[in-house]
Amino acid sequence: MANISVLGLGAMGQALAARFLQQGHSVTLWNRTPGKAGSLVAKGARECSSAADAVVSSDVTVICVLDYAASNSVLDGAASALAGRAVVNLTNGTPAQARAVAERVASLSAAYLDGGIMATPPMIGSDHALILYSGSKATFDAHVRTLEALGAATYLGADAGLASLHDLALLSGMYGLFAGFFHASALVDSEGIRASEFLKLLGPWMTAMMGELPGYAEKIDSGRHGVNVVSNLAMQTASLQNILTATREQGVATYLLDPMLELFRKRDGAGHGNEDISGVFELIRLKSRGGS
Amino acid sequence: MANISVLGLGAMGQALAARFLQQGHSVTLWNRTPGKAGSLVAKGARECSSAADAVVSSDVTVICVLDYAASNSVLDGAASALAGRAVVNLTNGTPAQARAVAERVASLSAAYLDGGIMATPPMIGSDHALILYSGSKATFDAHVRTLEALGAATYLGADAGLASLHDLALLSGMYGLFAGFFHASALVDSEGIRASEFLKLLGPWMTAMMGELPGYAEKIDSGRHGVNVVSNLAMQTASLQNILTATREQGVATYLLDPMLELFRKRDGAGHGNEDISGVFELIRLKSRGGS
Repeated sequence: MANISVLGLGAMGQALAARFLQQGHSVTLWNRTPGKAGSLVAKGARECSSAADAVVSSDVTVICVLDYAASNSVLDGAASALAGRAVVNLTNGTPAQARAVAERVASLSAAYLDGGIMATPPMIGSDHALILYSGSKATFDAHVRTLEALGAATYLGADAGLASLHDLALLSGMYGLFAGFFHASALVDSEGIRASEFLKLLGPWMTAMMGELPGYAEKIDSGRHGVNVVSNLAMQTASLQNILTATREQGVATYLLDPMLELFRKRDGAGHGNEDISGVFELIRLKSRGGS
Repeated sequence: MANISVLGLGAMGQALAARFLQQGHSVTLWNRTPGKAGSLVAKGARECSSAADAVVSSDVTVICVLDYAASNSVLDGAASALAGRAVVNLTNGTPAQARAVAERVASLSAAYLDGGIMATPPMIGSDHALILYSGSKATFDAHVRTLEALGAATYLGADAGLASLHDLALLSGMYGLFAGFFHASALVDSEGIRASEFLKLLGPWMTAMMGELPGYAEKIDSGRHGVNVVSNLAMQTASLQNILTATREQGVATYLLDPMLELFRKRDGAGHGNEDISGVFELIRLKSRGGS
């Protein structure tokens, strides 16, 4: 069993602390504004009046606050206590923010592991929670069993920005999926068909279409988008145009798919109509990494 | 075995005719420009020099051409032969176009079944092909075995526009999925991570997130988007804002997810921040069907 401090007692911080307690760890708590530790203290946690006190009480300190401005402020308060300690920062942010904190924590002679929680607070400790980690491999290895009690733990590499990068990328994929679902449901709703009924068709269809992604990924990785005689970009530009025309005819807003058509047209107009639609990737990717 | 005519010998028309021949049906062909029937004639099909001749040769006529302008022109040529016949139109179009053709065909005393093919030509006849049908139930019932040889056959109702409506809606969902995948892959690509490698995380994640759709569908159907204390619209607006800020920091274009953030902000700004994100549906749906 480990000694763990949890800094930040929002909904997620409380869920993490509760799960650590449930696993039998010794848990020390701190929150910027007091009064949030009550139910956890009742379950055996100890509350500290300063972040520095909490840090020196434990082998590992988990920070989970609103954003990196808040986690920087927490680290300000605990700076004097950090030398030789391990920090696991599960605060939401960007890769650049994670890397800046990693540098700062390293300069204070502490180990730094960044994490991205792919779960809501009630999911913590369940099979459905996934937490991505990057940064100090030694910290990950030393505490992996403790961390795995929170959810499946995936280590992505020494660069502290990688967890956040993957976190944001996974969420991007999810928002695309949801956007497609909202657009599709609005189309059938325009004729009085219930989304729940339509989902019986859409669900298996989306699962089948997931099967297209490995092929697109290969084309993206090679930078070669092939020649597709079966369903190329030119054909799919016509198809997507038809979808958005019908969407307007049905009185439904086209917002969510407008940019996809715009990218299709731009890539088609640049002479790539006979290639696969994966070529639109070249229009959004980081320019310096290649593309046409 | 049936007598079937196929009008239109593009890639899809040829695939349909080849599958009918393979099943042992008697197949008659016609194409606006001759010279495309060769390999099918070699397999036993008969080519006609007019659409009207092809229609009178068969119990059922399948039309599969580029668009509804083309299928209208085909019907012009065959109009005199249609009385008492059955037409199955598998041409891509909109619900409004399908309904207009259905009316016209009915006025010529023929039965009309519209269809939407959810497959590429090489998939015809495989387990992965799905074809949606709507319009004449009698025509569907009379030919369902023949049609099922092409792919799973789903009948959606007597309104001829329903097949096209569902076809376009399913494709909308797919394009949302692909947009999310492209954005997500561009994010990780900005740090040199291969899309194929990332897909090992994204695939299971997207499958897990599909599990959110039934809950959203229920909220959409009820028009009540609940109160969500775990991950509401206000929280997710901040999260999506963070994703797009990071996307820009990484040098990746935000096009594909900009409209989703715009809708989140608009709905949040209208006082629905404590509700579920499914509420953005109310901003795109057909106004006269409800919404806030």
